[in-house]
Parts: sequence; structure tokens; C-alpha cells
Amino acid sequence: MSSSYSNYTNSPCAACKFLRRRCTSDCVFAPYFPPEEPTKFANVHRIFGASNVSKILHEVAPHQREDAVNSLAYEAEARLKDPVYGCVGAISVLQRQVLKLQRELEETNADLMRYASCLGGETTSAYGGRRG
Amino acid sequence: MSSSYSNYTNSPCAACKFLRRRCTSDCVFAPYFPPEEPTKFANVHRIFGASNVSKILHEVAPHQREDAVNSLAYEAEARLKDPVYGCVGAISVLQRQVLKLQRELEETNADLMRYASCLGGETTSAYGGRRG
Repeated sequence: MSSSYSNYTNSPCAACKFLRRRCTSDCVFAPYFPPEEPTKFANVHRIFGASNVSKILHEVAPHQREDAVNSLAYEAEARLKDPVYGCVGAISVLQRQVLKLQRELEETNADLMRYASCLGGETTSAYGGRRG
Repeated sequence: MSSSYSNYTNSPCAACKFLRRRCTSDCVFAPYFPPEEPTKFANVHRIFGASNVSKILHEVAPHQREDAVNSLAYEAEARLKDPVYGCVGAISVLQRQVLKLQRELEETNADLMRYASCLGGETTSAYGGRRG
């Protein structure tokens, strides 16, 4: 158990393993690319390159690095699945969905207004008729 | 005029100018990175690296390369504006907008159903009352 723990902590991170370099205690990749997730680094390396990922990590505050890595991993995976549009394809789909929902909501609101005025008119006419 | 045209056609593309290399007639970047848009290449180079952009361009069919370059340029600009979330930030905003609209649409549809059953009830009751 202690041997397995020791092996785990001594393992280079997925980035250093991929780049075949020594993983030091100040490795900028290690906290975000654990050895058990080799694909995560392979993907961002393939799309952005290790040097650009490292630059981005140094640009952002330490508490934001996990989010930065996860968004880079998401973009990289999307680009590998769809080399033409990448995650911009998802943006287009969502933009169309927003437009469709806005149109549906406008139509439903217009129906609601018609029903409301119709209900008002029906009531007035019925009672008005009786009263007249 | 002819001199300016000749200068324009002989200009290296924005990528070759940036990379300080000779722009040949088979340059993969030239059709998508015209010399008058230097920022477009500078951005994708800074985020993806010239070599990765070239790899992606070679992976996709020629008729899809313009879309690929434009989506890469969009992603690069988004990442430069927001190094933590890049265009994944836009995806999160759009996903929240879709959920909000879906909720609003459900509520409006429920209101519509209530009005419809109310209108039906009112009519039946009014005429039923008169007939009874």
C-alpha cells in the first residue's frame, strides 16, 4: 500500500511523461495533468502545443489554472472531434437553439395575450348580454 | 495602379510575413491569411502555433479550410480576451440562456393551458347556466 502510494507520488505527471522530461516539484502541469489521465494532456498538446499551454497557465492566477486547463481540454477534444468547427460548432448550435426558443416564447406569449383578451371579451359579452 | 496591384499580389501572406519566410504559390496559409489582416494570423499563432494550424489545414478538405481558419481565429481571439475560459465561456453563457428560455417557455405554456381550460370552463358555465 505504502509502496503503491510512493510509486504514485513519484510518477511524473501526464505532461512530463508525454514530453519525456523529469517532473519536478514546481512543474506547472503536474497539478492539472495527473498521470492517470494521459489523454487530457495528449489532446491539449496536439491542438495548442505544450509551450502555449504553459504560457497560458503562467498568464492566469493559480486559483484559475484548473478552470483554464479544463476549458483548454474541452476545446482540444472538440477540435479533434470536429477539425473544421471545433467547439465553435457547439456555439453555432446553441445560438440557433436560443433564437428558436426566443421565437417560440414570443409566439406563446402572443397566444397568451390573445387568450387573455378573448377571455376578457367572452366574459364581458356574456355578462354584458345578460345585463343588457 | 498596376504597380500597387503587383505589390499586393507579390506580398507574402500574413503568416509568411509573421514567420519571416518566403511565401510560395503552394503556401497553405496564403488563401486564408491575407497580408492586410496581420492580427488574424498573429492570434492563431499565439494560441495554437503555426505548426498546429498547418496540421489542421492539411487534415480538412480544401473547401472546408476557410471555415476551419475562421473558427480557429474565433477561438484564438476568445482565448486572448479570456485566458481562463476562452470561447468555452461563451458556451456556458449560451447554455444558461437556453435553460432560462426553456424554463420560461414551459411556464408560459402552463399559463396558456390554464387560460385555455379557464376559457373553456367559463364558456361552458355561462352557456350551461343559461341553458339550465
